[in-house]
Formats: sequence, C-alpha cells, structure tokens
Amino acid sequence: MASFPLVPGSTIGVLGGGQLGRMLALAAARLGFDVVIQDPEEASPAGRVAARQIVAAYDDRWALKRLADACDVVTYEFENVPADTVAELAGLGAMVSPGAKALAAAQDRVVEKSFLAEIGVPTVAFAPVHDSASLADALARIGAPSLLKTRREGYDGKGQAWIQKAADAEASFDKIGRQPAILEAPADFGRELSVIAARGRDGEIVCYPVSENHHEGGVLRRTVAPAKITAATRDQAEKIAAKILTALDYVGVIGVELFELSGGKLLVNEFAPRVHNTGHWTQDGCEVDQFEQHIRAVAGWPLGPTAPHHHVEMTNLLGADVDAWRKLAAEPETRVHLYGKGEARPGRKMGHVNRLRPLRD
Amino acid sequence: MASFPLVPGSTIGVLGGGQLGRMLALAAARLGFDVVIQDPEEASPAGRVAARQIVAAYDDRWALKRLADACDVVTYEFENVPADTVAELAGLGAMVSPGAKALAAAQDRVVEKSFLAEIGVPTVAFAPVHDSASLADALARIGAPSLLKTRREGYDGKGQAWIQKAADAEASFDKIGRQPAILEAPADFGRELSVIAARGRDGEIVCYPVSENHHEGGVLRRTVAPAKITAATRDQAEKIAAKILTALDYVGVIGVELFELSGGKLLVNEFAPRVHNTGHWTQDGCEVDQFEQHIRAVAGWPLGPTAPHHHVEMTNLLGADVDAWRKLAAEPETRVHLYGKGEARPGRKMGHVNRLRPLRD
Repeated sequence: MASFPLVPGSTIGVLGGGQLGRMLALAAARLGFDVVIQDPEEASPAGRVAARQIVAAYDDRWALKRLADACDVVTYEFENVPADTVAELAGLGAMVSPGAKALAAAQDRVVEKSFLAEIGVPTVAFAPVHDSASLADALARIGAPSLLKTRREGYDGKGQAWIQKAADAEASFDKIGRQPAILEAPADFGRELSVIAARGRDGEIVCYPVSENHHEGGVLRRTVAPAKITAATRDQAEKIAAKILTALDYVGVIGVELFELSGGKLLVNEFAPRVHNTGHWTQDGCEVDQFEQHIRAVAGWPLGPTAPHHHVEMTNLLGADVDAWRKLAAEPETRVHLYGKGEARPGRKMGHVNRLRPLRD
Repeated sequence: MASFPLVPGSTIGVLGGGQLGRMLALAAARLGFDVVIQDPEEASPAGRVAARQIVAAYDDRWALKRLADACDVVTYEFENVPADTVAELAGLGAMVSPGAKALAAAQDRVVEKSFLAEIGVPTVAFAPVHDSASLADALARIGAPSLLKTRREGYDGKGQAWIQKAADAEASFDKIGRQPAILEAPADFGRELSVIAARGRDGEIVCYPVSENHHEGGVLRRTVAPAKITAATRDQAEKIAAKILTALDYVGVIGVELFELSGGKLLVNEFAPRVHNTGHWTQDGCEVDQFEQHIRAVAGWPLGPTAPHHHVEMTNLLGADVDAWRKLAAEPETRVHLYGKGEARPGRKMGHVNRLRPLRD
C-alpha cells in the first residue's frame, strides 16, 4: 500500500483519457509525479501528455492489474467508472480516490438525492420510478410539470424528458427508454451556481469561490467567477460542500451544482466526484487550480490556497467554436486551453478560454 | 514546410528532455499541441510528459530524420545543440527556431561579445585567447584581475578561472585545459539582473519585468521579480533585449543576463537563446509564462501579455534541497515545481519554488 503523502516521483493512475484527465496529468507533472492513463482510445488527449497509457476498457482485468501494479494511487476523470472496476482495483491492493461511496452516490440519481436528504442537504422533491405504477405514484406526489431522468448515466441534458401534464407521463417514460428513473420537481431558480471544493486525506476542507454558470441545450457554456453573491449564500454553499465531503469521507476535488432560489436558498442539483467544468476558471484565476488541488488531495499533500487573484469568465469551445482559435489567441485578456482532440464534432468539448479581468471591478 | 500560425494539433519538436523541455511540453499541451522530445536519455523528464520521445544522440541522422518528419517546427532547451544538427534539420526541410544565427552567437563567448559590440550593446572589455602569445596580448589589454573562460561550453561556473595577477596567467590557462578562451575584465557590478524577452514571427517584441538574480558558486540560487529598478534601467534593459532580438532575426524567448554597474549602466553578461532559469518566476507571477510565450512565438501565434500579477521570489531546489518538499508543499504562499528527476545528485536542479506576495508591497 502507498504511504501518504506520496513522495515526488510516485505514480498516479487516472481512469479516463479525456480533457479532464489531460489537465490532471499536466498538474501532476508540475508536482513531479508520473501519470499513467487508462482509456480505451489510443493516443487519448490525456495519454499524449502522460508517462504511459494503458489502452484498454475499464473492465479489462488484465489492464487493471497493470494499472494497480504501476500506480501508488488511482483516480478518475468521470463518475461512471464501473463499481466493479473500483472493487477489482481495491482487491489488487490499489487505493482509489475518491472512494467507492462517492462513486456509488454519484452514479444513481435516486441514491444521490436520498443521500443528500439523509445528511440534511436540500434538493428538489423527487421520487423513484421503475414502472407505470411507480410513475403514477411519483406523479401524484411531485405533480406536473416535472422532470423525468434516468437514474444512471445521462449527462449534458441526455436521458431526460419533461412531463408537462399527467397525461404525458407514459410518453416521457417511453422517451427515456423506460429505464429506472427519478421524477424531480422543477426548481424555481434564478441562477445556477456551483462550488468546487476539496477534501484532503487528513479531513481538511477548502472551497473555491462560488461560480455562476450558464447552460445552453443542457451543456455548460459559460462560467463567471467569483459569482456576485452574498456572504450568506457563500456560507450556505460552503456548508453544503463540507457536509457532502465529510459524509462521503471524500478525498479529492468535488463539483457541487446548485440552484439559487429567488429567496436566496440553495438546492443541490447534483454533484460530480471529480474535477468539474465549472472549475476550469481556477486555472487562471487562482494560484492553485482545481487540477493541482485534486492531485494534492489524492497524493495526501496539504491542500493549497483557493483565493482568487483574477475575475474570470470561462467559455467552453464546443465543436466548431474552436475554429476561432486565431482570434482567441490574439485577445490579450484571453487564456486559451485546447484539449488536443482531432475531430471537432458538433457539441464536442474541444477547449475553453478564460477571459481575465482585475478582481476589483 | 509548416504554415504559420501553427494550427492546434500541430507537432512541436524539442531537442533536449530536461526540465526546460518538460515545462515547454506542458505549456505546448495547454495550447493543444503535441510534443516530440529528442534526448539521449530514456524516459527523460520531458519525454515523460510528451506525446513521443525519440531516444537518440543529437547527431543521430536517422533520429533527426524522424524528428523532422514528425514535427511542424523544432526548438531546443539548451544552447549547445550542435550546429550540424540544425543544418541537418534544415536540410530535411524542418524549421528550427530560434535559428542558426542565434545558436552560433550563443555558443561561442568571443562571437557573442563581438556580436554585442557590433550592435552597440555594452559588455565588459574582452579579448580572445588561443595560445600563450594571445594570452599575453589579452592580459596587456585587459589587465588583472580578469576572468579567463573557455569560448565554448561551460556553464554554471564551469570552465572558468580567475587571473589575479599577470604571473598567474599561464596557470589559469592550464586550469581551463588551454582551450580556446576569452579573457574578460571584471564587471564592477552591484547587482545581477536579467530580462526575459520574446520575439514573434512577425517581429513583435515583448519583455517581462526585469528580475534580480542571486548566484551561489556560479549557480543561480534565487530570482526576485519584478526587481526594484528605475524606469531608466528598465528602459535600458528592454532596448538591449530588443536590439539583440532584432539583430538575430530571433523567434522565441531569450534570457539576457545583465550586470548593473554602480552608476546604473547595464552591461550584458551573456544571453541564452531559450527559456531561462531566471524566468521561472513568470509561471506564477504572470498570466502567460515564458514557456507558453516561447511556444506561442515558435508556433507563429501572437505573443501574450507579460504584466506581472504577483511579486515572486523563485528559489532553485538543488540536490538534496528537494528533500524539503513536505515542508514546501505546506507553505500557503509557495508554488512547488518539481522536474521528475530520480537521483538528487549534489547541485542537480531538481525543482524550484515560487513564493508569492501581492505586487503592492
């Protein structure tokens, strides 16, 4: 077993070779760590900046053995890592952070919201759905309009269907493939906020300033940070993050998406047990960004400062947006981050830009 | 031939796989470029964060062919790249930046100082030495005490010998192996400063704030930036850098080491046609650091801003200094940069730290 804090020169494994894995690998390198990426895709964005890539499916037991042997700690860039993969790695003596409890809660929307309810963190009203009878029950409790989502998978607006009135319920259930689902009451929110937080191996918790997020078609388009919020709102957000992190005995960075209701109350929409798109602004707005913070946490290092030194507007470059790179590269206030992905398919996250301005504006 | 600006996804070759190559590779990855490292050492610090490493000597023609074929532009992390290597790459149709003229000037101290004299940039008085007769001539002109240095190679204080009085001259010449040399008058300087500057493919020139440098035993120990200097001194430094960059038709980042005389006049000690240890502070003190700036320049991108947002004290971690990583990692004001080198041999550059404080102090 690894001994923490990890000595520089230790090896950190990352499941997933996309842009989050890539930015984690770059951060780990700065601190003197080697990185091994496991991803089914050859020459993945993260694999191309790592000491080594294991090209294999996440349930490839032989590959997991090689990963466990090579690494002092294993982390991941996406929350849909199969539970069996984590169990397999644990069986091989590998430490996986964040742990199985966080993954289990993040993979199933009913488990996630039930967990939040248990620890006293407010969410919208919800009810589980698995057949026509439970759908009718849920609808009787939640009412319409309401939002039907698959319990598992589904992201960026996929696997969701609105139920505008009770008569539409079965059609919406059909639309999401009659998979196990959750029915959620709509949140009457003014803004979508998020808080990126981290917990170290020693239980220390830090939070970055809350950001304000703007989605288009279910996909994050823009994050502004630090968000203009009251001290009371910041306090709520930080308490929510701390409750979740502590209850999950979490190690690493977490992204907690929040709805801000008109009265100022915050509800949790969902959380992601990993570095988060709404935390990309920290790369140019903070001394220690979310990627280094995550590496510090999983490596058992002390956490770094989270105070901002710039106001940042982060904009995702989706699909052909990236063709504007010439113009973006010439903007003096704009820091460009590109992921090394080949094909700019519509909606694909190709990069992002952080536009900076002084804090006191 | 490559067409500039290089499209994201293009490949940048780097000769040399040490820490400078590593930090260049990390910066290139942020902008969406792939990097190929050529270095004789297997699993070099830079090779472990690059898409590919060619393990070969710098005069391996077959390796250079592979490098030229793989890359849209080639750069380097050290100024002692053999001239034949650059000629070979050029013959293979590869663009090497900075170019042969900069390398030639930087590789030979007599050529360097003669070039500076030609373009009207002040240095200490100097004279070439190649045998006992020219040594006697040089000594008659320069006097003693004076400093005898090999014309080529030699860095961090190696290949140098002081001549305290005329009678010591032959002994000092013996000490440096009677190699072709330069005799330099001592500079009566108060401080060692440096300016990191960059020139783009379009001739645009930018300078970072001047830094103040402290050496121990001929090796850089500490850099403080921005240095406390007058506007006139800053102006001198920027004009010197611009003269050198323009005269060399330079593309990339250059490090110019300066002596500040008691009256405020600046002399150039030497310049390095590459990213420079005294520019490491820019990683945490500026929005665009010297590594991204160099990649921008060689890729034909517009140069980025050079204004500082923090005051930085950079300290090199030499040899066993790196054993203090636990303590350093826990200092909130300290950003840690480690190079992924295995053995902490005495004096070896293992990493550096940037200690930050607000600009207005």
